[in-house]
Amino acid sequence: MKTKLQIIKIGGHVIDDASVLDQFLVDFAHLDSPKILVHGGGKIATKLSEQLGIKTKINEGRRITSKENLEVVTMVYAGLINTQITAQLQAKGCNAIGLSGADANTILAEKRAVKPIDFGEVGDVKKINTSVIHSLLSTQLSPVFCAISHDGNGNLLNTNADTVAAELAIALNNQYDTELIYCFEKKGVLANIDQDKSFIPQLTVADFDQLKTAGLIYGGVLPKIENCFHALRYKVQKVRIGGVGQLKKNTTVFTAFSL
Amino acid sequence: MKTKLQIIKIGGHVIDDASVLDQFLVDFAHLDSPKILVHGGGKIATKLSEQLGIKTKINEGRRITSKENLEVVTMVYAGLINTQITAQLQAKGCNAIGLSGADANTILAEKRAVKPIDFGEVGDVKKINTSVIHSLLSTQLSPVFCAISHDGNGNLLNTNADTVAAELAIALNNQYDTELIYCFEKKGVLANIDQDKSFIPQLTVADFDQLKTAGLIYGGVLPKIENCFHALRYKVQKVRIGGVGQLKKNTTVFTAFSL
Repeated sequence: MKTKLQIIKIGGHVIDDASVLDQFLVDFAHLDSPKILVHGGGKIATKLSEQLGIKTKINEGRRITSKENLEVVTMVYAGLINTQITAQLQAKGCNAIGLSGADANTILAEKRAVKPIDFGEVGDVKKINTSVIHSLLSTQLSPVFCAISHDGNGNLLNTNADTVAAELAIALNNQYDTELIYCFEKKGVLANIDQDKSFIPQLTVADFDQLKTAGLIYGGVLPKIENCFHALRYKVQKVRIGGVGQLKKNTTVFTAFSL
Repeated sequence: MKTKLQIIKIGGHVIDDASVLDQFLVDFAHLDSPKILVHGGGKIATKLSEQLGIKTKINEGRRITSKENLEVVTMVYAGLINTQITAQLQAKGCNAIGLSGADANTILAEKRAVKPIDFGEVGDVKKINTSVIHSLLSTQLSPVFCAISHDGNGNLLNTNADTVAAELAIALNNQYDTELIYCFEKKGVLANIDQDKSFIPQLTVADFDQLKTAGLIYGGVLPKIENCFHALRYKVQKVRIGGVGQLKKNTTVFTAFSL
């Protein structure tokens, strides 16, 4: 039997609220190892861009990462957020090591094709270097990934944090029994976004398609759900979407039966 | 016989000039492993502080690291510079891993006493976690340290990069035959700061005291030289100060005979 490995992703809503983040990090530190944390950004990068007068370019409704935007997210994600989270985990007894994808060549990405939309300095995961991650985990370290990757040619790339978490779960599934957990501001996937009670304990592709078509599931949770099904298709056995503070509690669960 | 380990520190003058930095990183990547890079800051942090309207406080002529300054240096040193250097080294075939002192608890520091001068969020190195650094070096990784450390209680601290390099050389000297190299904008220690020709091939404590008293050696090289003698006193066998591009060439050499 393979060792269990939990890969947990937190997003901006967790990072932006110091007390929510602190409680989450207490819970994360208390999880049995091995474990990996992946974090997104938050409002800090947007605020810093505004302060520096850097405009966010939009192309056909999609956000573009200019070279200036990339510098800001590298400073905020790989610098401020990643280093602060790592220091806070250390204080809670978790031997964390902050990483970008350039560190030890852990996440190699490919710059996204410029057509149909040129997203700028954005990369899609090409290869996860599992041996070095395994080696870190084996020495009882808990990797903390920001979603900055590199292309192997000296260029950093902004990468979707949800996708990074899913790709880590898929790549490490050969050596570990990986579990992918998305933590966000809701209790799980909700059939009605305004009602916590409407949370769906198990979600199948068929249910999802129906709820999406009916316009009941929309917004930021959509790519998370798609990443969940993607991970399941690549043999990740357990995938969950839930609220922060629910690392061990009820969440929306996806299993191979969901496909 | 112990394995040789080179610990090389670069400062702002190297970081601020893209082509100088690039050439240095080529040289660093070509060095035989194991090796560690320590980098300081540069003008970027000062520029970013100005853009954000963050004033640098001065107390009795000494620069103070306020909480706002610490956030800026964490973003710039641990984020932008560290991640870019790591990605560039990866492109040059060097398997670099960027670290702050919080990562894997590598550098534990102590906040400096507030008297006689309160330097703010500044820390002095208390303990280097050599086992985890050894473990990284053993897997052919080259650690790249920025000079941000942590206090073990969740707080980051701004630490002097020259000192970080010296303390790494001292702490790792038990397991390795460490060599400490400071790379900066001059060819070595100069008896006359305006004349490259005046470079001193070997420097003893007695020479140094004399040149310092005569006012011939002054400014940023002083703490470097003091760190060199400090490392020698703690049994580091070889210590050098030289220009970038001189990793294998003439530099000012300090040996046990210098004391």
